[in-house]
Amino acid sequence: MHRFDLWAPFAKSVAVKANGTTFPMTRVGERGWWHAEVAHAGAGTDYGYLLDDAPTPYPDPRSHWQPEGVHGLSRIYDQHAYAWTDAKFHAPPLASAIVYELHIGTFTTQGTLDSAIEKLDHLVGLGITHVELMPVATFSGEFGWGYDGVALFSVHEPYGGPDALKRFVNAAHDKGLAVILDVVYNHFGPVGNYTGKFGPYLIDSHKTPWGGAVNLEGAGSHEVRRFFCDNALMWMRDYHIDGLRLDAVHAFMDRSASHFLEQLAMETETMAATLSRRLVLIAESDLNDPRLVTPREAFGLGMNAQWSDDFHHALFTVLNREKEAGYYSDFGTLAHLAKAIEQTFVYDGIYSNYRRRVHGRPATNVSQHRFVAFIQNHDQIGNRATGDRISHVVGLGRAKVAAALVLASPFVPMLFQGEEWAATSPFQYFANHEDPEMARAVSEGRKLEFEAFGWPPESIPDPEARETFVRSKLNWNEVGQSEHAEMLAWHRNLIRVRRATACLNNGEPRNARVSYNQQAMWLSMDRGSIAVLCNLAESEQSLPLPSSSELVLASSNDIRIEDAKITLPPDTVAILRTNRAAGDD
Amino acid sequence: MHRFDLWAPFAKSVAVKANGTTFPMTRVGERGWWHAEVAHAGAGTDYGYLLDDAPTPYPDPRSHWQPEGVHGLSRIYDQHAYAWTDAKFHAPPLASAIVYELHIGTFTTQGTLDSAIEKLDHLVGLGITHVELMPVATFSGEFGWGYDGVALFSVHEPYGGPDALKRFVNAAHDKGLAVILDVVYNHFGPVGNYTGKFGPYLIDSHKTPWGGAVNLEGAGSHEVRRFFCDNALMWMRDYHIDGLRLDAVHAFMDRSASHFLEQLAMETETMAATLSRRLVLIAESDLNDPRLVTPREAFGLGMNAQWSDDFHHALFTVLNREKEAGYYSDFGTLAHLAKAIEQTFVYDGIYSNYRRRVHGRPATNVSQHRFVAFIQNHDQIGNRATGDRISHVVGLGRAKVAAALVLASPFVPMLFQGEEWAATSPFQYFANHEDPEMARAVSEGRKLEFEAFGWPPESIPDPEARETFVRSKLNWNEVGQSEHAEMLAWHRNLIRVRRATACLNNGEPRNARVSYNQQAMWLSMDRGSIAVLCNLAESEQSLPLPSSSELVLASSNDIRIEDAKITLPPDTVAILRTNRAAGDD
Repeated sequence: MHRFDLWAPFAKSVAVKANGTTFPMTRVGERGWWHAEVAHAGAGTDYGYLLDDAPTPYPDPRSHWQPEGVHGLSRIYDQHAYAWTDAKFHAPPLASAIVYELHIGTFTTQGTLDSAIEKLDHLVGLGITHVELMPVATFSGEFGWGYDGVALFSVHEPYGGPDALKRFVNAAHDKGLAVILDVVYNHFGPVGNYTGKFGPYLIDSHKTPWGGAVNLEGAGSHEVRRFFCDNALMWMRDYHIDGLRLDAVHAFMDRSASHFLEQLAMETETMAATLSRRLVLIAESDLNDPRLVTPREAFGLGMNAQWSDDFHHALFTVLNREKEAGYYSDFGTLAHLAKAIEQTFVYDGIYSNYRRRVHGRPATNVSQHRFVAFIQNHDQIGNRATGDRISHVVGLGRAKVAAALVLASPFVPMLFQGEEWAATSPFQYFANHEDPEMARAVSEGRKLEFEAFGWPPESIPDPEARETFVRSKLNWNEVGQSEHAEMLAWHRNLIRVRRATACLNNGEPRNARVSYNQQAMWLSMDRGSIAVLCNLAESEQSLPLPSSSELVLASSNDIRIEDAKITLPPDTVAILRTNRAAGDD
Repeated sequence: MHRFDLWAPFAKSVAVKANGTTFPMTRVGERGWWHAEVAHAGAGTDYGYLLDDAPTPYPDPRSHWQPEGVHGLSRIYDQHAYAWTDAKFHAPPLASAIVYELHIGTFTTQGTLDSAIEKLDHLVGLGITHVELMPVATFSGEFGWGYDGVALFSVHEPYGGPDALKRFVNAAHDKGLAVILDVVYNHFGPVGNYTGKFGPYLIDSHKTPWGGAVNLEGAGSHEVRRFFCDNALMWMRDYHIDGLRLDAVHAFMDRSASHFLEQLAMETETMAATLSRRLVLIAESDLNDPRLVTPREAFGLGMNAQWSDDFHHALFTVLNREKEAGYYSDFGTLAHLAKAIEQTFVYDGIYSNYRRRVHGRPATNVSQHRFVAFIQNHDQIGNRATGDRISHVVGLGRAKVAAALVLASPFVPMLFQGEEWAATSPFQYFANHEDPEMARAVSEGRKLEFEAFGWPPESIPDPEARETFVRSKLNWNEVGQSEHAEMLAWHRNLIRVRRATACLNNGEPRNARVSYNQQAMWLSMDRGSIAVLCNLAESEQSLPLPSSSELVLASSNDIRIEDAKITLPPDTVAILRTNRAAGDD
């Protein structure tokens, strides 16, 4: 016996087809719900819904398992059969986290959750506390970044399906690693999205880069919000996920008195209390709005943290000598970087030339631990024409400087897979849209996008080609090679120092102070008893050594201390400990 | 010498045509500003702007005077020449206000601001504290409600133009009356809107009932917001307006970190402090979101008050015996009315059948003085098929009950012109769109709208016909007639009691308690030492008299007190004072 429940307010009649037999469903109440009880259905049963006169069944919008992909039948999955062994695990607080973003398809050669388990010891050795998985919800085709998910309650079958995700989380927890999952609630992928057959999941009155916006405020929005909240709760409850990364929340259009994010925060808090677990919500936001990470009690939206793009852009444009176009044009000086480090938002109510409007609001009342900082993430690499990494763009010396500033920053630091050893593999944009027309549009669109920036079309990897996906896989053989090993040790040491030094984990009260000289191109980031000195000039320079200070880490053996001076070769960084603030760490 | 400044980012070249001569304008900076200094221009000069190759000049989007209407040239107006005599006036606080909404075109036979001045003594005698003018910004044609304004910085010429508004405000202040002005920032009227020639005032990515939304968050939005904020400040600074009523703020689409309304609230607060005046912002909102009237410091939007539609709908549907469709279908019981009185929002996070979604959020932490209550306003009358008033719809007895509940409510009460004497004139929807196609569309649209509710097309007054406008004018001869005089005395007495009774002016802590019996159709609203007892049954009924209570006001001479009981005929209301809460008033 299995009870099927379905929200399909658009339908005049509904049947469920289970094990090849059709069972009519009964309308329950007047708000679009249908149900049926089917005697010989249960875990493993394949099923789909027949709406009105449609000849073939559609997959369940809330399907837990799509073994045949986005167009195939759904399969009943026993959410509670997995034998968890992680009862003793407790996720560390976000304030002390070192996050590591990875993409299951390219993290290993096999590209599965099970093969990723084998690499967890590497992450533990590096000092990582939180693994962040790029989206694993079922999307069209074999490979892709995951942001085109359509069956949002099921795990992409090529990654191993639902049980594989549980094995991965269980294994991570066994090794003391928390797991954050990236979820996409601002749109559905363009191929295999059947939700529109069932109900008003999208509305036309607001446009987003992907078409009509998700319906968070119109008729039926209470059920659409339920759909997404239930999805979030499912990952955290049934898959033991420790938190979610919410993709591009600025694309949410919601004038409701209770904003969708606030509802999600409240329900997550309630579940955390019920389960006695630490659950976090991390938003990607382009709004520079501190309200996002302000508690709900003060009419904030209650997110635990958000990604800090201003820090990334400020740091990247300082490191990269070429003048960059697009959103990078709003950054480029050490003053921008200093403001990002000290005040989080560079655009905090000032005019943005790129946006041609005033942007943002000061975040100076919010702990800097509510912001995630990085010099690499899937977008910042993958949205470059050829997916080249920071070490490819600015060289190893500057990549080390970047790592030092990220890992000693007042924010929650995040690395992207392979960054720790300066992997040679790129991370390119790839997608496997099964619809040939959509695939052609994506391939062509990618070329046109970069042609506008002067890239010859033939230099742009074809996103829909399997080689592009394969090329983006990490080559783990590199890890043992000397140049890579040095980079890996650099990251490991930086993480070790951060985790062992109280003043580096201090988000509130803020202790980040930056001094710099734009002409001489040096910058010093002071965080209590720790100082990070960077030389970004083209020649070596000597800077006065803070009194009673000792060298903790140096990115180059050529960094010298003598006569109360520290001499830094070009593109090097030194981490110093001073005793002036006794007891500060 | 006059300096012309213009924001026209779309233009490649701009000239100003002043006194018939064309003067080229110079681009200033890179953000779309142009300027020119013209020697022989000054107050009284007619001018317009020539954009690129356009053969004729367009009026100034910020024109202070459109003597020839929306399509004509602008005229330079000396904003500071008027000789104000209102220095001693200080607006009373909103918490103690009795608001009176009026429409200049129909308030008097002549339909001008100057003729309206002659009626101010009537309002003073009634006990009004705040006059609220429906929009006076220049709109297409001679007559209209004013919500189709396009030259938002100028006063509609048929009302008397800019100086007439100053004479009106000055006269009102001389008589101790504050003036609220209705302003429309959510759209421009469909005829005569030239702003789109100049810059991105509207955007296509969000749709409203009037088309593209006002651009509050896209490129150029900093200037569009400046345009509206400057408009608001102009009325309050140069016209001595004491506050603004903001039309339909739910139509604002703004995801900016600083919401447009918050910016407007901040700038209004700053101006109030600078001028040492009390300035208020009152929003019309369909969001049931207490954040609107929450202080900015707590991430609220800082409005001083908002209109309370739930109270209106709850009261109207209880008084009107016929089952109503549309948004009224969400109301209709005494329980709805009791919740509206005690908790402000009936839809406070519960499911609305009409909206087919969950709506609103509790407002129980917000003072009820932040809500304006009414049984009539321009919309609630004029949006009925034939513009009939509450006294026409439910009879005089129930209109008296409504007045008692409004004027003894915990909210800020508001009357609509003529309500105080149960005027026989309707307030119908009228407009004078000079564009024949638009006029036909409006006439036809109105008929179709009400056909859907079963109204024969010939019964719907033609909005574009002058008779419809004339029919809606108040007939002041009625005021002296006996039936009307009784209604006027009823309102005057209710206002007198409210203003003299402390517990009726108590918004926080809340003291409104309602008891009722749905079957017997009686309702008692208790506000400290004042009780309002209503009998809405079809026959008389006796209710126990609260101990030590005296009758303050009775809507009918047939209301009797005997043997610790009060007997109320059908459709009557009594106001009682009890002594149980000694010192409470």
